[in-house]
Amino acid sequence: MKLKDWGEFGIISYLKDFFPGGGERVILGIEDDCAVVKGPRDFYYLLTCDSQVENVHFVLSLFSPFSLGKRVLAVNLSDIAAMGGKPLFALLSWVLRPDIEAEWLKEFARGIKEEAETFGVNIIGGNLSRTESQIVFDLTLVGEVESDYPLLLRCNSRPGDLVLVTGTLGDSRAGLEITLQGSEEEREKYSFLLERFFTPSPRLQVGRLLHSLKERIALIDVSDGFSQDLGHIAEESGVGAVVEVDKLPISPTLREWSEEKGKDPFLFALSGGEDFELIFTVPRERGEEIKQFIEKESGIPVTIVGEIVFGRGVSFKRGGKEEKETASGWNHFQ
Amino acid sequence: MKLKDWGEFGIISYLKDFFPGGGERVILGIEDDCAVVKGPRDFYYLLTCDSQVENVHFVLSLFSPFSLGKRVLAVNLSDIAAMGGKPLFALLSWVLRPDIEAEWLKEFARGIKEEAETFGVNIIGGNLSRTESQIVFDLTLVGEVESDYPLLLRCNSRPGDLVLVTGTLGDSRAGLEITLQGSEEEREKYSFLLERFFTPSPRLQVGRLLHSLKERIALIDVSDGFSQDLGHIAEESGVGAVVEVDKLPISPTLREWSEEKGKDPFLFALSGGEDFELIFTVPRERGEEIKQFIEKESGIPVTIVGEIVFGRGVSFKRGGKEEKETASGWNHFQ
Repeated sequence: MKLKDWGEFGIISYLKDFFPGGGERVILGIEDDCAVVKGPRDFYYLLTCDSQVENVHFVLSLFSPFSLGKRVLAVNLSDIAAMGGKPLFALLSWVLRPDIEAEWLKEFARGIKEEAETFGVNIIGGNLSRTESQIVFDLTLVGEVESDYPLLLRCNSRPGDLVLVTGTLGDSRAGLEITLQGSEEEREKYSFLLERFFTPSPRLQVGRLLHSLKERIALIDVSDGFSQDLGHIAEESGVGAVVEVDKLPISPTLREWSEEKGKDPFLFALSGGEDFELIFTVPRERGEEIKQFIEKESGIPVTIVGEIVFGRGVSFKRGGKEEKETASGWNHFQ
Repeated sequence: MKLKDWGEFGIISYLKDFFPGGGERVILGIEDDCAVVKGPRDFYYLLTCDSQVENVHFVLSLFSPFSLGKRVLAVNLSDIAAMGGKPLFALLSWVLRPDIEAEWLKEFARGIKEEAETFGVNIIGGNLSRTESQIVFDLTLVGEVESDYPLLLRCNSRPGDLVLVTGTLGDSRAGLEITLQGSEEEREKYSFLLERFFTPSPRLQVGRLLHSLKERIALIDVSDGFSQDLGHIAEESGVGAVVEVDKLPISPTLREWSEEKGKDPFLFALSGGEDFELIFTVPRERGEEIKQFIEKESGIPVTIVGEIVFGRGVSFKRGGKEEKETASGWNHFQ
């Protein structure tokens, strides 16, 4: 059997079992958006790492090095947001081709630094290696949460909880399609979608607000795609989820572009990936109150899109009727 | 200018200046073998990351996945040893080709796990990505040191200090040459050298013993090559170093192989790299005592090979005379 037959989630599941974590100073191993370890007095440290591989996650000819730098940090910041954490410091591995221009590297570093300064992160270490082929950036980011607050874990959902999501879904994937296939005119008209793809906004403030509630909240960021990421919550919590597709938040720009192209924006919303919004579930009776609290404090819209039920997996309702087709997200190796 | 013209150390120097580190909870940024941050009460955490890139650091056809797994962890453990630390937990990024065999990945994971268990490390996180070309493993390792002990920093050397080194030098590079060019017979006869290349032994115990002395000690591990790594100590301390080449510890096996091949074993010792021994400097009056203490407690030989002087750079004496030629070590991008 080859890795492409095994599939990303098969491999991850094997490695999770093979490396059960635990040990001195470790609170949580390979289970959630971040690992959790003991930190200084009253704090836990959160640790996460994420790679960006050339021609898999980005194409050099399409990305300015500056926005690529911002993005490499942003995708990791999103994992800290998904634990309600505050980011602190990072180590960055650079695997680069010798024919890359020094100017390119400097612009990339400037992008990293701008994003780092925006979110209070310090780059405190790294490693430089050569490659002859695909560039790789691998970033390990460390954040912290107060240790006397409940952790915002994927396994926190219970039947009856409501499912909420920040911002809008599907923009990033549409931005990618326009980048790859769109005309100059289209790129100008739909620059909002391009921006959502190139420079995602990690929802750190929302994560901190949810954390401050000291409530039983399951939280994950949208990296693989809404339906797949909600699926992670359902699986880790041992519950099912029902999503009302019509309620999924679609931006006016995505709606307009979809209409022009004859596409279904809800498919982008369900399976697009890399939106870096937050999905969270809260006890039903506090749903409306928490939605309003987050919107008021952060200025970011929050939408109630479904509920947690007894059972397994994620199912979908559209126009009041159950929808069979499940839209899947991104899966490396398949 | 391209990266190959800029050179590894030019790039690193630029990035060090560009990312000055500092910030909340940070004790030390990009300056030494590890970054240092505040940890739980009375401890600092040490953070280090290192990549292993296919066809740069390893060749698939030469490595068993099991020993490659051990090695990926070992090279990082060596950085924790070089701070006198105790390793705790790690995050591992896997960048893999879809045509890799599942069995290969399982054997690799087994190698990681065996090395991790030997040294008390837990794998608590990671990331899985696809590539179409060179495989990359990037590992971030976290260790700890007691915060009320002096840090064993590269900048700790002062004129008059003695320079010491553990074990023997140059074996690993000879092992690589035999792997690439040697006959079957040679590989069998010099299996010690092959082992030194394939499965290096991080000197964690020696690091801990040096740390326990509460002494002003500069410490680094031999990854780029003895002369280059001692050069890092000299540079960070703002001093010079004089090495008596004849005193460099050469294993009987390397001596025999060199004689057979008509090679100079001292060149391998000076510039070989990847020995993962420790170089350290101690106040002159304590040199002999510390040497004997380490040898007695760890069973690993320690050799006094030179001294720290006023000035800059590393110079060499051979047969009592100054040697002009400086043997350089490994430099990515050049």
